[in-house]
Amino acid sequence: MQNVGKSVTRVDAYDKITGRAKYTDDLCDNRSALVLRIVRSTIAHGYVKSIDASEAEKVPGFVKIFTCFDVPEIDFATAGHPYSPDPSHQDTADRRILNRHVRYYGDDIAVIVAENEIAAAQAARKVKVEYEELPFVLDAQEAMKPDAPVIHCELFQSNVLKHTDVRIGNYAEAIKEPGLICVDKWYDTQTVQHCHIENFICYAYEEAGKVVVVSSTQIPHIVRRITGQALGEPWGNIRIIKPYIGGGFGNKQDALYEPLTAWVCRKMGGRLVKIDVSREETFVNNRVRHAIRYHIISWVKPDGTFVARKLECFSDQGGYASHGHSIVAKGLGAFAKMFPCPNVEADAYTVYTNKPVGGAMRGYGMPQASFAFDCATEDIATALGIDSLELRRRTLMPKGFKDGFFKTEQYYDSYNQCLDRATAYIDYEKKHKEYAHQTGDIRKGVGVGTFWYNTGVWPISLECSSCRMVLNQDGTIQVQVGETEIGQGADTAYSQMAADVVGLKDYRDVHIVSNQDTDITPFGLGAYASRQTYMVGFSVTQTGKLLKKKILDYAHEMTRMPVDILDVVDSNIVRKGDGRVLVSLAQLATTAFYDTVHCDHLTAESTYQIKSNAYSFGCCAAEVEVDIPLCRVQVKKIINVHDCGNLINPALAEAQVHGGQSMGIGYALSERLIFDPKTGRVLNNNLLDYKLSTAMDHPHLEAQFVENPEPTNPFGTKSLGEPPACTVAQAIRNAVLNATGVAVNDLPLHPQNLYKRFCEEGLIKDPWQKEE
Amino acid sequence: MQNVGKSVTRVDAYDKITGRAKYTDDLCDNRSALVLRIVRSTIAHGYVKSIDASEAEKVPGFVKIFTCFDVPEIDFATAGHPYSPDPSHQDTADRRILNRHVRYYGDDIAVIVAENEIAAAQAARKVKVEYEELPFVLDAQEAMKPDAPVIHCELFQSNVLKHTDVRIGNYAEAIKEPGLICVDKWYDTQTVQHCHIENFICYAYEEAGKVVVVSSTQIPHIVRRITGQALGEPWGNIRIIKPYIGGGFGNKQDALYEPLTAWVCRKMGGRLVKIDVSREETFVNNRVRHAIRYHIISWVKPDGTFVARKLECFSDQGGYASHGHSIVAKGLGAFAKMFPCPNVEADAYTVYTNKPVGGAMRGYGMPQASFAFDCATEDIATALGIDSLELRRRTLMPKGFKDGFFKTEQYYDSYNQCLDRATAYIDYEKKHKEYAHQTGDIRKGVGVGTFWYNTGVWPISLECSSCRMVLNQDGTIQVQVGETEIGQGADTAYSQMAADVVGLKDYRDVHIVSNQDTDITPFGLGAYASRQTYMVGFSVTQTGKLLKKKILDYAHEMTRMPVDILDVVDSNIVRKGDGRVLVSLAQLATTAFYDTVHCDHLTAESTYQIKSNAYSFGCCAAEVEVDIPLCRVQVKKIINVHDCGNLINPALAEAQVHGGQSMGIGYALSERLIFDPKTGRVLNNNLLDYKLSTAMDHPHLEAQFVENPEPTNPFGTKSLGEPPACTVAQAIRNAVLNATGVAVNDLPLHPQNLYKRFCEEGLIKDPWQKEE
Repeated sequence: MQNVGKSVTRVDAYDKITGRAKYTDDLCDNRSALVLRIVRSTIAHGYVKSIDASEAEKVPGFVKIFTCFDVPEIDFATAGHPYSPDPSHQDTADRRILNRHVRYYGDDIAVIVAENEIAAAQAARKVKVEYEELPFVLDAQEAMKPDAPVIHCELFQSNVLKHTDVRIGNYAEAIKEPGLICVDKWYDTQTVQHCHIENFICYAYEEAGKVVVVSSTQIPHIVRRITGQALGEPWGNIRIIKPYIGGGFGNKQDALYEPLTAWVCRKMGGRLVKIDVSREETFVNNRVRHAIRYHIISWVKPDGTFVARKLECFSDQGGYASHGHSIVAKGLGAFAKMFPCPNVEADAYTVYTNKPVGGAMRGYGMPQASFAFDCATEDIATALGIDSLELRRRTLMPKGFKDGFFKTEQYYDSYNQCLDRATAYIDYEKKHKEYAHQTGDIRKGVGVGTFWYNTGVWPISLECSSCRMVLNQDGTIQVQVGETEIGQGADTAYSQMAADVVGLKDYRDVHIVSNQDTDITPFGLGAYASRQTYMVGFSVTQTGKLLKKKILDYAHEMTRMPVDILDVVDSNIVRKGDGRVLVSLAQLATTAFYDTVHCDHLTAESTYQIKSNAYSFGCCAAEVEVDIPLCRVQVKKIINVHDCGNLINPALAEAQVHGGQSMGIGYALSERLIFDPKTGRVLNNNLLDYKLSTAMDHPHLEAQFVENPEPTNPFGTKSLGEPPACTVAQAIRNAVLNATGVAVNDLPLHPQNLYKRFCEEGLIKDPWQKEE
Repeated sequence: MQNVGKSVTRVDAYDKITGRAKYTDDLCDNRSALVLRIVRSTIAHGYVKSIDASEAEKVPGFVKIFTCFDVPEIDFATAGHPYSPDPSHQDTADRRILNRHVRYYGDDIAVIVAENEIAAAQAARKVKVEYEELPFVLDAQEAMKPDAPVIHCELFQSNVLKHTDVRIGNYAEAIKEPGLICVDKWYDTQTVQHCHIENFICYAYEEAGKVVVVSSTQIPHIVRRITGQALGEPWGNIRIIKPYIGGGFGNKQDALYEPLTAWVCRKMGGRLVKIDVSREETFVNNRVRHAIRYHIISWVKPDGTFVARKLECFSDQGGYASHGHSIVAKGLGAFAKMFPCPNVEADAYTVYTNKPVGGAMRGYGMPQASFAFDCATEDIATALGIDSLELRRRTLMPKGFKDGFFKTEQYYDSYNQCLDRATAYIDYEKKHKEYAHQTGDIRKGVGVGTFWYNTGVWPISLECSSCRMVLNQDGTIQVQVGETEIGQGADTAYSQMAADVVGLKDYRDVHIVSNQDTDITPFGLGAYASRQTYMVGFSVTQTGKLLKKKILDYAHEMTRMPVDILDVVDSNIVRKGDGRVLVSLAQLATTAFYDTVHCDHLTAESTYQIKSNAYSFGCCAAEVEVDIPLCRVQVKKIINVHDCGNLINPALAEAQVHGGQSMGIGYALSERLIFDPKTGRVLNNNLLDYKLSTAMDHPHLEAQFVENPEPTNPFGTKSLGEPPACTVAQAIRNAVLNATGVAVNDLPLHPQNLYKRFCEEGLIKDPWQKEE
């Protein structure tokens, strides 16, 4: 491994730092583009009765309006999952390109086509919509009640999109054991948004009879399928091109407005049309992280041994299914794996509400679940008066744990290795005791949090990656994969891996084709499930070996040395025995291209279907300072330690962790979408009122790694993209508990929340509280 | 063959007719592009001593000037030939990106970089250049004289770039045979230009460390190599993208200004720079058709039997080598093949002159050579008083003729078949006699001309074509090849062939990737030598069979029917025995993409090295009306008959012939570049003064075909792109001879020329002629 494992410079660093890199809007011919603006519902639930665009049509620059009465009568699903020919594995098709039955405040009911953004916005405002209003519901458990309005009455009898359960042992019998202590708690997580830098944007035009959509998406091949389905067109008629994108974090793992834009393009005779979604729309009309509520009842022995546990999860899906139940189900499945217990009764419900749509977001349900699970461990330790770190070490998935479903196991003592590193860094054990009984206005605390995460989606869904490699005349290679660079540095990791597989001296001799184009790019599923480096590891290795074989066969022809004694090392063809360079790869390539006796364009392409999964582990430790009167928490020190297998590029891995820590700090302390209970409208749909965590809110972000080689993967690597976001909130919550003795069970721990809790616990006195 | 052989609609018809198709300038971000303007020499030969840009720099919008003193000290060749690792087969590297030693009036000596076209033009005009002037020479035979200035004194001792010869039998002995008649004539052809609609244009920018050039070129993969060589960079650093282009006719089969543009881009730190060559520059500073002069001495028996022949060819190369000697050499090689003769002495000289550069142009030397050869046959018949059509039938390459070098033969009686059709169409035999002895001012005449053309460049150079095919989810396929659509309809022919090879119902189920991108497109050499349909026939067949095999293997898995009894017919998997449809290709494709047991992205890619060649044949017959006092020729009737093997798309084939006929009429009657003998400057560098043939000059253009299946090719096809331009001028010249008795041996037959000849032959009296 000459390139893998080194912190080499990103292949896109120069272009991105200089501002030269082209993103969707840079590529759009804005001189000729018509712009789209969506007319949005101003009620949370009901039917559109009529739409009057007579005033909108008078706006100079208005071109056309299409409404929910014009769209194809095709229900489609927007989720970025691989398709399954098995209907029972297909996503819920519960929406149309524009919706007549509106399910949340802001739903898409019409679209203005105009000559410019201003005309589009003005015209959209002048559209008059008449509704038949229906009752609405904004809470998952409320929505499960028999009298709740049924939001998708066309498809379901209730608002429960899906319910699944896990049963291990016999919970009801087990809890009868005498001497058990019962800890019964509710934990609640809020709705947050991804807040990637580049809002969703796409444009569409016709070319050679196809509709081409250039889109800021994580999943071009999947968007091709969904767009074809939504338009009712053969999928080959759809071409999706993905340029560099300014982040996604899962929000762009749905087909957001590609179907709409493609459809309008068709309706406009193939004219170039563009939609550039505003930040306000990004908050409300893209996807959000599911607010999930957990109820955990733990029956434990006095020494902390878990005897029986019950889990209930209520996931707030919002108005449409999107990724739906799979998000809460991930946590459901993790519960008995992360903390094995002989008797478990666990149930998860995904419930439609009249709110913005929950979708994929970095962590895919695990930030919520890990928060609840780890708080529960802390709360059990508190109830028993035992050491919570010690309790974690005893109850977390042990080395040797085998998972029959995922067909993987805990090969190492990962949790203890990670916890050792993290707690040492913040001097946890000493400080945790020291901080236990503080008084005064400013108090300190330390806490830890843990997570588990898998890699990719097998065996739940298809996992595959295809790769094409081409030898250039100068001995460099072109590499194409369907797995997308979305800002995380994936292209660099692929280049490093490809260089090592083929035997190139330098990863810069790999020309990675960064942009995916579904007409050209080998089929790959895109950026999600922290799958990319793991999956591409397989396809790059397989394809690189195919290319290398072709190279060596050609070298055999050139040198008449037996192919078995030849190798490609440092971009040269060498004899294995003595390492003698026989011919450079560049010379071989030039000959292969131009030899009049035997010319061959040496390329390789193959699909690797992956039927394995890998577990990542890790933890976070944080030290906080709590200002009791101001109800304010400051993170003073934070460390994440990850076992994500071997690192392909340590600097990129570290950057990935930093991003996740920042996201986790925001999740813990400040971020949430606020809904007006009277209308269902989002009240803070902008970056002024939505308190995104920024560098101002961070201490130094420490990232460390335990590199346990993953045995299933050619490069020994496993998931790292999402895990860093899964473990911060519980560490901070537990640190606040250590500092103040107050367990806060709902996120975020922002001043309003702490004020309420500190009042309840008597740390401060509520001046408005009535004397009794 | 369900799709091949039908006149289906072009795949790009709708986009091109509606103006939606994107050409290079449509794709350029002109808001941010810097524009280039070349400063050109105002002498025909000499050295640049100094360049003073002080006034140019004051022009608002001026950004930068680069001169011949700044460019890399790398000599490179611009010709669009496949590279050869053998130095003796490499093109002559005789120029730099900008030239200090200027070889023609208009040579590239500096380049202005400016913010807009106007500033660039103004600045270019203000550059002051000091020269050391040298004598110049404008005629090939003059340039061969010992006292002529040596134009490439750095590389050669004389102006003869190359001399080759053919020797058959013993000419000197053979001519001693008593009773032979000697016909000794000179034939001269003029300099013309391609006059494609879209002038050469390209732009360059940096991306991921590479320089990307989007260019209106016929040969993207070759331009990649040349640009890399000119810049001294590894070829993998260069990426060439070819959009739709507005014609080329061989002019864009050179690297014209891609190296300059790429180099300026690098010097400007990767900024987007564009060059949009004007029509005036297209005429002078791109490439032109070589003016070639022929001397043919034929020793024949009274019955017309050819006993011994001598040929001398003098090709005016202009200032730089470009395609150089291969153009005149093609005619040289054709001489003894087209008209076999036991004793031949033939010599061809390619000679540098101080004129615009001769390069590839539709016909590649054969319009010139065919004109001379066929005129010679006509002149021999006239001298002998025998029928020229009969003489052709007896002397043209007969059925069974074998060519040891090209390893091909005349498999059919093609010439007679074609001549039968053509002469019947214009009632040649009757009219030729009838018109032989006219008087009066207006006279009519008929004439025929013949041609021979090969297909591609094997065995002179490398021939190969690579193809990649991808099965889409809907059972359609994507096809990529390196052979380029340049307006001729190639993409449509490829789609038809691919559909039939794979077994698709409709050619529209083939999504051809029209634009070539050297980072992605399989290696193919591009549009030249009338090679594309022939070569792609091999690679599409081979690759299509590989894809079909993968499809059938997957079908076997799905159906458990033995693979041998399965076939793909009409986009279905069928049992061969009873034709029963087992599963549609679309169903199979969707399963292959998404099956969780065995998913595979079915693709195929392969290179086919072609080691065969194929001969095309045909003729033209024309009827003209000559106005003696006005010295004006009008074509009243014209027909081309081609044996180009099986037609892939008859309508496209017919269109190809129409274009060639138009070009041939202009070549015969009106087109020529005029050079100022005092300066070497081109005097008619625009479409007002250069008399391009237009629809106003044409009668109905009749195209007919003799479809003799070419045995070497999977589709039985062979060259058609260039041949139609090779046979018109001699038919018209012979028709004028029939009408007037005047043999005009230099082209074009425009009024000035006819006035001179008619005066010489006494048909009209020159009022300025002195009484003797």
